[in-house]
Amino acid sequence: MGRWEPDSRGRLREAALALFAERGFDQTTAAEIAARTGLTERTFFRLFADKREVLFGGSEVLGERIVAAVAEAPDGHTPLGAVAYGLDAAAALLGEGRRDLCAQRHAVIAANPELRERELAKLADYAAGVAGILRQRGVGEMQATLAAEAGMTVLRVAIERWASGGDDRDLGTIMSDAVAELRAVAAGG
Amino acid sequence: MGRWEPDSRGRLREAALALFAERGFDQTTAAEIAARTGLTERTFFRLFADKREVLFGGSEVLGERIVAAVAEAPDGHTPLGAVAYGLDAAAALLGEGRRDLCAQRHAVIAANPELRERELAKLADYAAGVAGILRQRGVGEMQATLAAEAGMTVLRVAIERWASGGDDRDLGTIMSDAVAELRAVAAGG
Repeated sequence: MGRWEPDSRGRLREAALALFAERGFDQTTAAEIAARTGLTERTFFRLFADKREVLFGGSEVLGERIVAAVAEAPDGHTPLGAVAYGLDAAAALLGEGRRDLCAQRHAVIAANPELRERELAKLADYAAGVAGILRQRGVGEMQATLAAEAGMTVLRVAIERWASGGDDRDLGTIMSDAVAELRAVAAGG
Repeated sequence: MGRWEPDSRGRLREAALALFAERGFDQTTAAEIAARTGLTERTFFRLFADKREVLFGGSEVLGERIVAAVAEAPDGHTPLGAVAYGLDAAAALLGEGRRDLCAQRHAVIAANPELRERELAKLADYAAGVAGILRQRGVGEMQATLAAEAGMTVLRVAIERWASGGDDRDLGTIMSDAVAELRAVAAGG
């Protein structure tokens, strides 16, 4: 109820992440999250389907952006070169967010096996979507899968490094660097 | 009860995979699995902690073999070259098994989101173990993670191809080929 509150969603998200970090995800209720922001539980459930959506609410948009960017990559790129367009799009989207909230999100997920499995499944879904686009671009089955999966590993590793605070560069730069590291790892015997 | 039956575990596993494929994992009970083999439910629970163990019972041994083989790889290899020793060890272990049972296992897991998340988590655990070994071998943090994760993607893709029946070569050959494909994907711009 009550009138519309500007950025209630952002405030609830911030409070939720702080509570998940303090008490654990399973031990935190929607009512407690709402109470910390001065909002009602009803407002929480108007803005989020459940507690999990605080953590995974942006996942579909992210996946769509990545897949669309790979689909629109100019011709003439290697499979990993095309995937890099998707990683740039992900960096542009996520890089607008706050590092500290991203770090909290990752810590909460890492501490809870069920959430961790959910996160891995999301990344696998992105990889399947990207691999499908690569096949449409004429890449063979195995190379498409390997390029897509390796790309999603780069995504995860780069985000973790960015969120950890141990690397001051922006997410796009860290992402490009991770792609270069992947190339270096795979080169040679 | 009853006297010890040779390869009861193998027979139960085979019956379980067939039933999971026919009815779905959640719709199959341990009693039904036992009944199909002429064994008792009690025998099932003497040999398996639960239904899931039919699918994931060998996972820890596989992870240990992979990590040990990477640790024992001769010096002088690139990170991915060292990981390839782990993949060879995995191919040697899994390649002894039956392709048709491996294919059934994969189909059952693919059809069930919870099982799929569990499988991805197992692969992530192997990757974390391999990355730890690579770091001990002097590989930098990001390269260690990328090489380990890319290696576990190769493992998954190669096993799927082998089990699918669409590729007659042995698992070790498919695995080596997949490593070469990964190198090809990551080369160039």
